[in-house]
Amino acid sequence: MEELKKVIREVPDFPKEGILFYDITTLLKDGPAFAKAVDILCERCEGKEIDGVVAIEARGYIFGPAVAYRLGVGFVPMRKPGKLPAKTIQETYDLEYGTDTIEMHEDAVQAGQKILVVDDLLATGGTAAAACRLVEKAGGQVVECCFLIELSFLNGRDKLGSREVFSLLKYDE
Amino acid sequence: MEELKKVIREVPDFPKEGILFYDITTLLKDGPAFAKAVDILCERCEGKEIDGVVAIEARGYIFGPAVAYRLGVGFVPMRKPGKLPAKTIQETYDLEYGTDTIEMHEDAVQAGQKILVVDDLLATGGTAAAACRLVEKAGGQVVECCFLIELSFLNGRDKLGSREVFSLLKYDE
Repeated sequence: MEELKKVIREVPDFPKEGILFYDITTLLKDGPAFAKAVDILCERCEGKEIDGVVAIEARGYIFGPAVAYRLGVGFVPMRKPGKLPAKTIQETYDLEYGTDTIEMHEDAVQAGQKILVVDDLLATGGTAAAACRLVEKAGGQVVECCFLIELSFLNGRDKLGSREVFSLLKYDE
Repeated sequence: MEELKKVIREVPDFPKEGILFYDITTLLKDGPAFAKAVDILCERCEGKEIDGVVAIEARGYIFGPAVAYRLGVGFVPMRKPGKLPAKTIQETYDLEYGTDTIEMHEDAVQAGQKILVVDDLLATGGTAAAACRLVEKAGGQVVECCFLIELSFLNGRDKLGSREVFSLLKYDE
């Protein structure tokens, strides 16, 4: 994993002073590194009989559909309110200040389907936990939540409870 | 292509009255249909020596990275202003009312690179044309713009000038 960490750019003071931002665009533009990241996320899923992949806009869409394509399964986009055209179900979650809401088409996940939740980043875990609850509200089963990067000092895993969590690259500070 | 059209849901009066919305989420959640769409977009690129794929948030990320993965090349995300952490270049384009701006990291595309621009939808073409100009501003060459859906009655190709354009599914009304 150290070779993947080498192609992640560390940008100090973004989006605000004192925050060190892990910029994945330098990994994404490196074809072999990007392919390797997708492959590792997918290889873990062999034998788990995944039925579909879920991700949240916008950055979740970078890895979610590529993983779904490689696994040969469908992709379900979760979006901010008002963007999906058919009937939706919603989940609201807490932010540092205020709340946010995500939506999914009501018919996107079928009862009993085994779903993989994919995102680029596990930070505080609020968004990922809301995505899991939305899958479960539709009757789906979250087989695993997987992330390219985990900021482990933010303890995002706590919000995901007993669900299976995997992250490819961990940062402790 | 007719079998792919069958899995696209037509939603009348979205986002406003009188608009027929082509909902691709029903195609995305169908594993074989999604894989077929990605494969067709990629098969066209054989022999074109593509160096990288570019797409714009959020819906462009659904096909762009999957195509990049399948082609074994890097992916470059274009974003709305203020979201990319390192130094960017920008392009502004006209909307029906007002303007919008997209950004790309200054070092994302190298001079001489052959770039594929991918999006789910070619409507009026303003966003895609801005994406092409941004690639060209960085010194890249737009080898092709490819889309899942083209609303051909909106004449989006006109805005793309002499650049190569491919769309998988065309709708005339």
